[in-house]
Amino acid sequence: MADTNTLNALIEALRRLPGVGVRSASRMAFHLLQHDRPGAHALAQALEQAATQIRHCTLCHTFTENEVCATCLDPRRDRSKLCVVETPADQAALERTNAFKGLYFVLMGKLSPLDGIGPKDIGLAKLFDRATNGVVQEVILATNFTAEGEATAHVIAEALKARGLNVTRLARGVPAGSELEYVDLGTIAHALVDRR
Amino acid sequence: MADTNTLNALIEALRRLPGVGVRSASRMAFHLLQHDRPGAHALAQALEQAATQIRHCTLCHTFTENEVCATCLDPRRDRSKLCVVETPADQAALERTNAFKGLYFVLMGKLSPLDGIGPKDIGLAKLFDRATNGVVQEVILATNFTAEGEATAHVIAEALKARGLNVTRLARGVPAGSELEYVDLGTIAHALVDRR
Repeated sequence: MADTNTLNALIEALRRLPGVGVRSASRMAFHLLQHDRPGAHALAQALEQAATQIRHCTLCHTFTENEVCATCLDPRRDRSKLCVVETPADQAALERTNAFKGLYFVLMGKLSPLDGIGPKDIGLAKLFDRATNGVVQEVILATNFTAEGEATAHVIAEALKARGLNVTRLARGVPAGSELEYVDLGTIAHALVDRR
Repeated sequence: MADTNTLNALIEALRRLPGVGVRSASRMAFHLLQHDRPGAHALAQALEQAATQIRHCTLCHTFTENEVCATCLDPRRDRSKLCVVETPADQAALERTNAFKGLYFVLMGKLSPLDGIGPKDIGLAKLFDRATNGVVQEVILATNFTAEGEATAHVIAEALKARGLNVTRLARGVPAGSELEYVDLGTIAHALVDRR
Protein backbone atom coordinates (compact mmCIF):
# COMPACT_ATOMS: atom_id res chain seq x y z
CA MET A 1 0.00 0.00 0.00
CA ALA A 2 1.67 3.15 -1.28
CA ASP A 3 5.33 3.65 -0.40
CA THR A 4 5.21 4.79 3.17
CA ASN A 5 6.91 2.86 5.92
CA THR A 6 4.99 4.94 8.44
CA LEU A 7 1.74 3.67 6.97
CA ASN A 8 2.96 0.07 6.96
CA ALA A 9 4.07 0.45 10.58
CA LEU A 10 0.58 1.69 11.48
CA ILE A 11 -1.06 -1.25 9.70
CA GLU A 12 1.27 -3.69 11.46
CA ALA A 13 0.49 -2.08 14.83
CA LEU A 14 -3.27 -2.26 14.20
CA ARG A 15 -2.95 -5.96 13.35
CA ARG A 16 -1.88 -6.60 16.95
CA LEU A 17 -5.46 -5.88 17.98
CA PRO A 18 -7.50 -9.06 18.46
CA GLY A 19 -9.70 -9.95 15.50
CA VAL A 20 -7.97 -7.52 13.13
CA GLY A 21 -6.36 -8.94 9.99
CA VAL A 22 -4.39 -7.14 7.33
CA ARG A 23 -7.47 -6.00 5.41
CA SER A 24 -9.27 -4.58 8.45
CA ALA A 25 -6.04 -2.94 9.55
CA SER A 26 -5.62 -1.29 6.14
CA ARG A 27 -9.21 -0.09 6.22
CA MET A 28 -8.77 1.33 9.72
CA ALA A 29 -5.55 3.09 8.76
CA PHE A 30 -7.14 4.51 5.62
CA HIS A 31 -10.19 5.70 7.55
CA LEU A 32 -8.14 7.43 10.25
CA LEU A 33 -5.74 9.10 7.82
CA GLN A 34 -8.33 10.12 5.27
CA HIS A 35 -11.35 10.97 7.40
CA ASP A 36 -10.43 11.15 11.08
CA ARG A 37 -6.94 12.40 11.94
CA PRO A 38 -8.23 13.85 15.23
CA GLY A 39 -9.45 10.31 15.99
CA ALA A 40 -5.95 8.98 15.34
CA HIS A 41 -4.43 11.50 17.75
CA ALA A 42 -7.15 10.81 20.33
CA LEU A 43 -6.62 7.06 20.09
CA ALA A 44 -2.85 7.45 20.39
CA GLN A 45 -3.28 9.54 23.53
CA ALA A 46 -5.88 7.20 25.06
CA LEU A 47 -3.64 4.19 24.43
CA GLU A 48 -0.61 5.87 25.92
CA GLN A 49 -2.53 7.01 29.00
CA ALA A 50 -4.22 3.67 29.58
CA ALA A 51 -1.04 1.64 29.08
CA THR A 52 0.80 3.91 31.50
CA GLN A 53 -1.78 4.55 34.19
CA ILE A 54 -3.97 1.47 34.43
CA ARG A 55 -2.91 -1.21 36.88
CA HIS A 56 -4.60 -3.96 38.84
CA CYS A 57 -6.58 -3.48 42.05
CA THR A 58 -4.49 -5.04 44.83
CA LEU A 59 -7.61 -6.64 46.28
CA CYS A 60 -9.68 -7.89 43.34
CA HIS A 61 -7.24 -7.66 40.41
CA THR A 62 -9.59 -5.67 38.16
CA PHE A 63 -8.31 -2.71 36.16
CA THR A 64 -8.02 0.52 38.10
CA GLU A 65 -5.93 3.67 38.18
CA ASN A 66 -5.61 3.47 41.96
CA GLU A 67 -4.20 1.10 44.55
CA VAL A 68 -7.66 -0.31 45.28
CA CYS A 69 -10.67 -0.07 42.93
CA ALA A 70 -13.87 1.83 43.74
CA THR A 71 -15.90 -1.38 44.10
CA CYS A 72 -13.57 -2.83 46.73
CA LEU A 73 -13.56 0.51 48.60
CA ASP A 74 -17.37 0.91 48.53
CA PRO A 75 -18.52 0.61 52.20
CA ARG A 76 -22.07 -0.39 51.13
CA ARG A 77 -20.95 -3.67 49.55
CA ASP A 78 -21.49 -6.98 51.35
CA ARG A 79 -17.99 -8.18 52.24
CA SER A 80 -19.20 -11.70 53.14
CA LYS A 81 -19.84 -12.59 49.48
CA LEU A 82 -17.08 -12.89 46.90
CA CYS A 83 -17.94 -13.39 43.25
CA VAL A 84 -15.20 -14.83 40.99
CA VAL A 85 -15.31 -13.71 37.33
CA GLU A 86 -12.95 -14.07 34.39
CA THR A 87 -12.77 -10.49 33.11
CA PRO A 88 -13.78 -6.91 33.96
CA ALA A 89 -16.37 -7.21 31.16
CA ASP A 90 -17.98 -10.16 32.97
CA GLN A 91 -17.92 -8.13 36.18
CA ALA A 92 -19.62 -5.26 34.36
CA ALA A 93 -22.32 -7.65 33.05
CA LEU A 94 -23.05 -8.81 36.60
CA GLU A 95 -23.07 -5.23 37.88
CA ARG A 96 -25.64 -4.25 35.27
CA THR A 97 -28.08 -6.78 36.78
CA ASN A 98 -28.02 -4.92 40.11
CA ALA A 99 -28.58 -8.37 41.64
CA PHE A 100 -25.28 -8.72 43.45
CA LYS A 101 -24.05 -6.44 46.21
CA GLY A 102 -20.96 -8.36 47.31
CA LEU A 103 -17.36 -8.01 46.20
CA TYR A 104 -15.50 -9.47 43.24
CA PHE A 105 -12.32 -11.25 42.40
CA VAL A 106 -11.38 -10.84 38.74
CA LEU A 107 -9.15 -13.65 37.46
CA MET A 108 -8.12 -11.66 34.36
CA GLY A 109 -8.23 -14.89 32.43
CA LYS A 110 -9.01 -18.57 32.89
CA LEU A 111 -7.02 -21.75 33.36
CA SER A 112 -5.92 -22.85 29.92
CA PRO A 113 -3.08 -25.38 29.97
CA LEU A 114 -2.89 -25.41 26.16
CA ASP A 115 -2.12 -21.68 26.16
CA GLY A 116 0.26 -22.10 29.10
CA ILE A 117 -2.05 -20.26 31.52
CA GLY A 118 -1.81 -21.87 34.96
CA PRO A 119 -2.98 -21.03 38.49
CA LYS A 120 -0.25 -18.40 38.96
CA ASP A 121 -1.31 -16.45 35.88
CA ILE A 122 -4.84 -15.94 37.19
CA GLY A 123 -3.75 -15.21 40.77
CA LEU A 124 -5.37 -18.22 42.44
CA ALA A 125 -3.08 -18.02 45.51
CA LYS A 126 -4.26 -14.46 46.07
CA LEU A 127 -7.89 -15.51 45.60
CA PHE A 128 -7.49 -18.28 48.20
CA ASP A 129 -5.89 -15.81 50.68
CA ARG A 130 -8.73 -13.38 50.09
CA ALA A 131 -11.45 -16.04 50.41
CA THR A 132 -10.04 -17.32 53.69
CA ASN A 133 -9.69 -13.91 55.35
CA GLY A 134 -12.43 -14.78 57.85
CA VAL A 135 -14.88 -12.23 56.45
CA VAL A 136 -15.90 -14.03 53.26
CA GLN A 137 -18.73 -16.54 53.92
CA GLU A 138 -19.59 -17.55 50.38
CA VAL A 139 -17.65 -17.68 47.13
CA ILE A 140 -19.83 -17.48 44.01
CA LEU A 141 -18.14 -18.88 40.91
CA ALA A 142 -19.23 -16.88 37.87
CA THR A 143 -16.63 -17.98 35.34
CA ASN A 144 -18.01 -18.58 31.86
CA PHE A 145 -19.87 -21.77 31.00
CA THR A 146 -17.25 -22.77 28.47
CA ALA A 147 -14.95 -25.79 28.80
CA GLU A 148 -12.13 -23.66 30.21
CA GLY A 149 -14.42 -21.60 32.42
CA GLU A 150 -15.97 -24.76 33.87
CA ALA A 151 -12.54 -26.29 34.48
CA THR A 152 -11.40 -23.10 36.21
CA ALA A 153 -14.52 -23.10 38.39
CA HIS A 154 -13.93 -26.77 39.24
CA VAL A 155 -10.32 -26.19 40.34
CA ILE A 156 -11.29 -23.18 42.48
CA ALA A 157 -14.28 -24.99 43.99
CA GLU A 158 -12.20 -28.02 45.01
CA ALA A 159 -9.50 -25.86 46.59
CA LEU A 160 -11.95 -23.67 48.51
CA LYS A 161 -14.13 -26.55 49.71
CA ALA A 162 -10.95 -28.17 51.07
CA ARG A 163 -10.51 -24.96 53.09
CA GLY A 164 -14.05 -25.36 54.44
CA LEU A 165 -15.64 -22.52 52.48
CA ASN A 166 -19.18 -22.33 51.13
CA VAL A 167 -18.80 -22.37 47.33
CA THR A 168 -21.65 -21.84 44.85
CA ARG A 169 -21.87 -21.63 41.05
CA LEU A 170 -24.17 -19.51 38.88
CA ALA A 171 -27.24 -21.57 37.95
CA ARG A 172 -27.28 -23.22 34.56
CA GLY A 173 -30.64 -23.32 32.82
CA VAL A 174 -32.86 -22.06 30.06
CA PRO A 175 -32.18 -18.38 29.22
CA ALA A 176 -35.01 -15.94 29.96
CA GLY A 177 -37.17 -15.28 26.91
CA SER A 178 -36.12 -18.41 25.01
CA GLU A 179 -38.28 -21.17 23.57
CA LEU A 180 -37.40 -24.74 24.54
CA GLU A 181 -37.50 -25.85 20.92
CA TYR A 182 -34.48 -23.69 20.14
CA VAL A 183 -32.45 -24.32 23.30
CA ASP A 184 -29.56 -26.81 22.97
CA LEU A 185 -29.85 -30.23 24.58
CA GLY A 186 -27.11 -29.75 27.17
CA THR A 187 -28.81 -26.64 28.52
CA ILE A 188 -32.21 -28.37 28.78
CA ALA A 189 -30.59 -31.38 30.48
CA HIS A 190 -28.92 -29.10 33.04
CA ALA A 191 -32.18 -27.19 33.56
CA LEU A 192 -33.95 -30.51 34.25
CA VAL A 193 -31.33 -31.66 36.75
CA ASP A 194 -31.28 -28.29 38.52
CA ARG A 195 -35.10 -27.90 38.52
CA ARG A 196 -36.64 -26.26 41.55
CA MET B 1 -16.31 -1.81 32.89
CA ALA B 2 -14.42 -1.26 36.16
CA ASP B 3 -14.19 2.29 37.46
CA THR B 4 -11.50 3.81 35.34
CA ASN B 5 -12.18 6.81 33.15
CA THR B 6 -8.91 6.14 31.39
CA LEU B 7 -10.19 2.74 30.35
CA ASN B 8 -13.52 4.16 29.19
CA ALA B 9 -11.67 6.82 27.21
CA LEU B 10 -9.64 4.09 25.51
CA ILE B 11 -12.77 2.10 24.66
CA GLU B 12 -14.43 5.23 23.25
CA ALA B 13 -11.34 6.01 21.17
CA LEU B 14 -11.20 2.45 19.80
CA ARG B 15 -14.86 2.70 18.79
CA ARG B 16 -13.92 5.40 16.31
CA LEU B 17 -12.25 2.70 14.22
CA PRO B 18 -14.48 1.49 11.37
CA GLY B 19 -16.28 -1.77 12.13
CA VAL B 20 -15.54 -1.65 15.86
CA GLY B 21 -18.49 -1.62 18.27
CA VAL B 22 -18.46 -1.36 22.03
CA ARG B 23 -17.87 -5.08 22.57
CA SER B 24 -14.95 -5.33 20.15
CA ALA B 25 -13.52 -2.14 21.63
CA SER B 26 -13.73 -3.59 25.15
CA ARG B 27 -12.09 -6.80 23.99
CA MET B 28 -9.31 -4.86 22.28
CA ALA B 29 -8.71 -2.70 25.35
CA PHE B 30 -8.67 -5.76 27.62
CA HIS B 31 -6.26 -7.59 25.33
CA LEU B 32 -3.85 -4.68 25.10
CA LEU B 33 -3.88 -3.91 28.83
CA GLN B 34 -3.74 -7.51 30.00
CA HIS B 35 -1.57 -9.20 27.40
CA ASP B 36 0.15 -6.63 25.19
CA ARG B 37 1.10 -3.29 26.78
CA PRO B 38 4.11 -2.98 24.44
CA GLY B 39 1.56 -3.35 21.61
CA ALA B 40 -0.46 -0.47 23.07
CA HIS B 41 2.61 1.77 23.21
CA ALA B 42 3.65 0.69 19.70
CA LEU B 43 0.18 1.42 18.33
CA ALA B 44 0.07 4.81 20.05
CA GLN B 45 3.40 5.74 18.52
CA ALA B 46 2.50 4.43 15.05
CA LEU B 47 -0.78 6.39 15.10
CA GLU B 48 0.91 9.59 16.20
CA GLN B 49 3.65 9.27 13.57
CA ALA B 50 1.26 8.39 10.77
CA ALA B 51 -1.24 11.14 11.63
CA THR B 52 1.57 13.69 11.78
CA GLN B 53 3.80 12.66 8.88
CA ILE B 54 1.58 11.17 6.22
CA ARG B 55 0.23 13.51 3.57
CA HIS B 56 -0.95 13.25 -0.01
CA CYS B 57 1.29 13.02 -3.07
CA THR B 58 0.88 16.33 -4.92
CA LEU B 59 0.67 14.46 -8.25
CA CYS B 60 -1.46 11.36 -7.62
CA HIS B 61 -3.02 12.05 -4.19
CA THR B 62 -1.96 8.74 -2.63
CA PHE B 63 -0.55 8.61 0.90
CA THR B 64 3.13 9.48 1.14
CA GLU B 65 5.58 11.04 3.56
CA ASN B 66 7.12 13.14 0.80
CA GLU B 67 6.05 15.84 -1.63
CA VAL B 68 5.71 13.30 -4.44
CA CYS B 69 5.31 9.53 -3.97
CA ALA B 70 7.83 6.94 -5.13
CA THR B 71 5.55 5.66 -7.90
CA CYS B 72 5.15 9.09 -9.46
CA LEU B 73 8.92 9.65 -9.23
CA ASP B 74 9.85 6.28 -10.76
CA PRO B 75 11.48 7.05 -14.17
CA ARG B 76 10.70 3.53 -15.49
CA ARG B 77 6.91 4.07 -15.43
CA ASP B 78 4.98 4.81 -18.59
CA ARG B 79 3.78 8.40 -18.24
CA SER B 80 1.33 8.11 -21.15
CA LYS B 81 -1.04 5.88 -19.16
CA LEU B 82 -2.95 7.10 -16.11
CA CYS B 83 -4.97 4.66 -14.02
CA VAL B 84 -7.72 6.09 -11.78
CA VAL B 85 -8.44 4.13 -8.57
CA GLU B 86 -10.50 4.83 -5.46
CA THR B 87 -8.03 4.02 -2.69
CA PRO B 88 -4.35 3.20 -2.06
CA ALA B 89 -5.52 -0.38 -1.33
CA ASP B 90 -6.98 -0.63 -4.85
CA GLN B 91 -3.72 0.76 -6.21
CA ALA B 92 -1.81 -1.89 -4.25
CA ALA B 93 -4.05 -4.62 -5.69
CA LEU B 94 -3.29 -3.44 -9.24
CA GLU B 95 0.44 -3.20 -8.47
CA ARG B 96 0.47 -6.81 -7.25
CA THR B 97 -0.64 -7.95 -10.72
CA ASN B 98 2.52 -6.49 -12.29
CA ALA B 99 0.31 -5.91 -15.34
CA PHE B 100 0.35 -2.11 -15.33
CA LYS B 101 3.44 0.06 -15.70
CA GLY B 102 1.78 3.46 -16.01
CA LEU B 103 0.99 6.02 -13.34
CA TYR B 104 -1.95 6.39 -10.99
CA PHE B 105 -4.42 8.94 -9.76
CA VAL B 106 -5.91 7.97 -6.40
CA LEU B 107 -9.31 9.58 -5.78
CA MET B 108 -9.18 8.78 -2.04
CA GLY B 109 -12.89 8.07 -2.19
CA LYS B 110 -15.72 8.00 -4.70
CA LEU B 111 -18.58 10.25 -5.69
CA SER B 112 -21.33 9.69 -3.14
CA PRO B 113 -23.97 12.41 -3.10
CA LEU B 114 -25.81 10.76 -0.19
CA ASP B 115 -22.69 11.07 1.97
CA GLY B 116 -22.06 14.59 0.68
CA ILE B 117 -18.97 13.55 -1.29
CA GLY B 118 -18.79 15.57 -4.50
CA PRO B 119 -16.23 16.17 -7.27
CA LYS B 120 -14.15 18.51 -5.09
CA ASP B 121 -13.72 15.92 -2.34
CA ILE B 122 -12.11 13.42 -4.70
CA GLY B 123 -9.96 16.00 -6.50
CA LEU B 124 -11.54 15.72 -9.96
CA ALA B 125 -10.29 19.15 -11.09
CA LYS B 126 -6.74 18.04 -10.33
CA LEU B 127 -7.31 14.76 -12.17
CA PHE B 128 -8.57 16.62 -15.25
CA ASP B 129 -5.53 18.93 -15.15
CA ARG B 130 -3.22 15.94 -14.87
CA ALA B 131 -4.97 13.99 -17.63
CA THR B 132 -4.77 16.93 -20.04
CA ASN B 133 -1.07 17.71 -19.49
CA GLY B 134 -0.23 16.58 -23.02
CA VAL B 135 1.73 13.53 -21.86
CA VAL B 136 -1.18 11.29 -20.85
CA GLN B 137 -2.57 9.38 -23.85
CA GLU B 138 -4.97 7.02 -22.11
CA VAL B 139 -6.92 7.19 -18.85
CA ILE B 140 -7.85 3.77 -17.46
CA LEU B 141 -10.79 3.89 -15.04
CA ALA B 142 -10.30 1.29 -12.32
CA THR B 143 -12.87 2.45 -9.77
CA ASN B 144 -14.80 -0.36 -8.11
CA PHE B 145 -17.68 -2.09 -9.89
CA THR B 146 -20.17 -0.90 -7.29
CA ALA B 147 -22.98 1.55 -7.93
CA GLU B 148 -20.91 4.47 -6.64
CA GLY B 149 -17.72 3.32 -8.33
CA GLU B 150 -19.55 2.99 -11.66
CA ALA B 151 -21.14 6.42 -11.26
CA THR B 152 -17.74 7.93 -10.47
CA ALA B 153 -16.23 6.25 -13.55
CA HIS B 154 -19.10 7.54 -15.69
CA VAL B 155 -18.66 11.15 -14.53
CA ILE B 156 -14.90 11.05 -15.12
CA ALA B 157 -15.28 9.34 -18.50
CA GLU B 158 -17.77 11.93 -19.76
CA ALA B 159 -15.59 14.83 -18.65
CA LEU B 160 -12.39 13.41 -20.14
CA LYS B 161 -14.00 12.36 -23.43
CA ALA B 162 -15.26 15.95 -23.76
CA ARG B 163 -11.61 16.98 -23.51
CA GLY B 164 -10.73 14.59 -26.36
CA LEU B 165 -8.94 11.96 -24.25
CA ASN B 166 -8.84 8.22 -24.80
CA VAL B 167 -10.72 6.75 -21.81
CA THR B 168 -10.97 3.01 -21.02
CA ARG B 169 -12.52 0.99 -18.22
CA LEU B 170 -11.32 -2.27 -16.64
CA ALA B 171 -13.05 -5.18 -18.41
CA ARG B 172 -16.08 -6.67 -16.71
CA GLY B 173 -16.43 -10.42 -17.09
CA VAL B 174 -16.30 -13.82 -15.49
CA PRO B 175 -13.61 -13.99 -12.75
CA ALA B 176 -10.69 -16.32 -13.41
CA GLY B 177 -11.20 -19.77 -11.89
CA SER B 178 -14.98 -19.48 -11.54
CA GLU B 179 -17.70 -21.77 -12.86
CA LEU B 180 -20.46 -20.14 -14.91
CA GLU B 181 -23.14 -21.91 -12.84
CA TYR B 182 -22.14 -19.88 -9.80
CA VAL B 183 -21.53 -16.51 -11.47
CA ASP B 184 -24.30 -13.91 -11.10
CA LEU B 185 -26.44 -13.05 -14.10
CA GLY B 186 -25.25 -9.45 -14.45
CA THR B 187 -21.65 -10.59 -14.73
CA ILE B 188 -22.48 -13.22 -17.35
CA ALA B 189 -24.52 -10.70 -19.33
CA HIS B 190 -21.59 -8.24 -19.30
CA ALA B 191 -19.18 -11.01 -20.30
CA LEU B 192 -21.46 -11.86 -23.26
CA VAL B 193 -21.69 -8.26 -24.42
CA ASP B 194 -17.93 -7.70 -24.05
CA ARG B 195 -16.97 -11.05 -25.66
CA ARG B 196 -13.85 -11.04 -27.82
